[in-house]
Amino acid sequence: MKKYGEMTREELACEKKAVLSEYGKIKAAGLSLDMSRGKPSMDQLGLTESLLHILNKGSDCRTEDGIDCRNYGQLFGLKEARELFSSLLGIPAENIILGGNSSLNMMYDTVARAMLYGVPGSDKPWCRLDRVKFLCPSPGYDRHFNICESLGIEMIPVDMTPTGPDMDTVEKLVSEDESIKGIWCVPKYSNPQGITYSDETVRRFARLSCKAKDFRIFWDNAYAVHDLDENGDVLLNIFELMRGTENEDMLYYFFSTSKISFPGSGVALLALSDRNLEATKKIIEAQTIGPDKINQLRHVRYFTNAEGIIDHMRLHGMVLKPKFDIVISTLRSELGPAGIAEWTEPKGGYFISLDVADGTAAETYRLAAEAGVRMTRAGATFPYGKDPRDRNLRLAPSYPTKEELSEAIHVICVCAKLSYLNKVTTD
Amino acid sequence: MKKYGEMTREELACEKKAVLSEYGKIKAAGLSLDMSRGKPSMDQLGLTESLLHILNKGSDCRTEDGIDCRNYGQLFGLKEARELFSSLLGIPAENIILGGNSSLNMMYDTVARAMLYGVPGSDKPWCRLDRVKFLCPSPGYDRHFNICESLGIEMIPVDMTPTGPDMDTVEKLVSEDESIKGIWCVPKYSNPQGITYSDETVRRFARLSCKAKDFRIFWDNAYAVHDLDENGDVLLNIFELMRGTENEDMLYYFFSTSKISFPGSGVALLALSDRNLEATKKIIEAQTIGPDKINQLRHVRYFTNAEGIIDHMRLHGMVLKPKFDIVISTLRSELGPAGIAEWTEPKGGYFISLDVADGTAAETYRLAAEAGVRMTRAGATFPYGKDPRDRNLRLAPSYPTKEELSEAIHVICVCAKLSYLNKVTTD
Repeated sequence: MKKYGEMTREELACEKKAVLSEYGKIKAAGLSLDMSRGKPSMDQLGLTESLLHILNKGSDCRTEDGIDCRNYGQLFGLKEARELFSSLLGIPAENIILGGNSSLNMMYDTVARAMLYGVPGSDKPWCRLDRVKFLCPSPGYDRHFNICESLGIEMIPVDMTPTGPDMDTVEKLVSEDESIKGIWCVPKYSNPQGITYSDETVRRFARLSCKAKDFRIFWDNAYAVHDLDENGDVLLNIFELMRGTENEDMLYYFFSTSKISFPGSGVALLALSDRNLEATKKIIEAQTIGPDKINQLRHVRYFTNAEGIIDHMRLHGMVLKPKFDIVISTLRSELGPAGIAEWTEPKGGYFISLDVADGTAAETYRLAAEAGVRMTRAGATFPYGKDPRDRNLRLAPSYPTKEELSEAIHVICVCAKLSYLNKVTTD
Repeated sequence: MKKYGEMTREELACEKKAVLSEYGKIKAAGLSLDMSRGKPSMDQLGLTESLLHILNKGSDCRTEDGIDCRNYGQLFGLKEARELFSSLLGIPAENIILGGNSSLNMMYDTVARAMLYGVPGSDKPWCRLDRVKFLCPSPGYDRHFNICESLGIEMIPVDMTPTGPDMDTVEKLVSEDESIKGIWCVPKYSNPQGITYSDETVRRFARLSCKAKDFRIFWDNAYAVHDLDENGDVLLNIFELMRGTENEDMLYYFFSTSKISFPGSGVALLALSDRNLEATKKIIEAQTIGPDKINQLRHVRYFTNAEGIIDHMRLHGMVLKPKFDIVISTLRSELGPAGIAEWTEPKGGYFISLDVADGTAAETYRLAAEAGVRMTRAGATFPYGKDPRDRNLRLAPSYPTKEELSEAIHVICVCAKLSYLNKVTTD
């Protein structure tokens, strides 16, 4: 089969007829498939069933230090839970704050605190500045961008490369502009590409030289242990790299068990330097008496140790890998020959990034939605929801069944082709 | 026995000798008793044991609408949980937002949101104003005051009366000063007095006329169903009173199950008008995907309905009532005859407010601590930790056993006497 770009006008017209006919059939089938968000499937949720009742009676709720998790207290979370994540992530337990079920909440709160109080190194609260800007490697995670938009923080897109954000640009911008106060990073299996930052990228982050004395890296390591199989990517431990250096206060590190145990009832984590921790403590002492410790203890009892989590993640990988394979093989067989799209082939995480032909992502999204397949809204992976080339789509293979997924990706491929063909035949 | 105030110099010296001797004995006993916070006791925590494992398997986690609580979603919390609290509190379910385990967190966040964004009626975010002031009925809840202090909100103490805050003063101040943006209220079994606002007080709040267009009442109904027995106080439903009036946006209403189920793992609630809810929704959409729904469902399954909660609270009352009785009877028998103190005798809640002689609260606190009895820090019940008359102490009878409590209150009575005697004999 010829690539679309090499087809004659007649060949394109003929192909369009065939694709339109296929699209008609799909629409007639009346599908209803949702692959808009990175939600674990029923099979995955079932993997941690006994977490629900592992604490069975009151006496189960005591920690090794005799703390009754049912009662008030423990502002930073349970000691043994902090130690569990310490050994999993290679971060000292005393630099870890555990929260409720949402790391997004911890990220929002961390930015909101900076707005209201500033951070160590700030002259004043960020809300007192005329402008606050964040660098946003793009395509990126829409909810990170939403936080900025909500708090009136100006977003500057930075290109993503196969080794992470374009570090030449990052270094240049942060060294010149004092109003740039932060950058969003999903360093392992980035959302949506599934890119893992190279060692060199992580090292360049660790030694970043910034004009702003209160610049912060928001390091959302959401997929730290979320490999599809034993050939997963390896990410350098930035916390260890920065610890004890003059840059150590520059890092806010986030993690959660949302995609390890339950999204609706996991444990979220914020790791930070001693100085950041001390400043944060003063504020969250006014905010809460402590997080849900019973749920933290459930996690400790269920997983026991870091190995327990790693073992458990193999089970998630076994559910997810065949789904990623379906997406990749369908994209290869259906979009590959047409030569109108590129996509990533990640070794973990929750997403695949699909770049269709320039100017056709929104239309592909619309056509798919009309045919009953819901994707993440086109544009959502860019600041302000604006994809400058209108080409990026985020595919989230986890939630649908394999059968649904095959069907959904086929629909998306047909819609991507049709959008292209509509565009070139009317141009 | 003569009142201290009527004693001669010689009688006082004699009494001081006796009290000093008793204090010496107490110190020698080497006690270690903590009645500093309103923590439920082990007996109370045991009342909801089966809440821990009431959701036993994955299929238990589905709501009546088929929502899987283990997964993402439901920004405002579970429908059936909102309905449960709706029928308990007499507030429409659609005006209820459920959060995690901490209503303090919801209060802090509500004030922080007002600082960052303003509220409906604001010209600008409160953090852009030169001054923001809150009225603080005092003595009051230290953690409310901490929120203000943390966020740089100026606190204006308002006297508490047996029917609630001094409403003449409240009405006067809010009608004159545009920078007064809020007031903290614990309307039922106030912390620390255990006072319940009279119908007239609640009605005056509901029709408050404020200079600031964005004034808010922070109505922390923490002890809404926390009666010691069937003779509990009755509080007017302010949400119902204000609903549909021009003042309806003035109310933020808080509640939690911290002292119904588990302090470390309850469900917190914020109720607000349609307009406030819409404005809040836009912001918390950026903050989180949703609260811990599994824990909310546990509460629904465990309590079933409002009656289930009311029935359950009788059991708490049966544990707490004898403890309150011990405190009251000890104060009556040990401090009553001396005539140097006043205290409240609440019908519910978690605290008893003890006013010792002017200028002796801090010393009483210090002497008790030295004798091994930890109370809430003297002054903590006032803004900035400063009790102008240095006389108020908050007694929290819930956590110690009855035996410990008898001992602790005796110690406090001895220390209150000794502080008085030290003062008058050196003056």
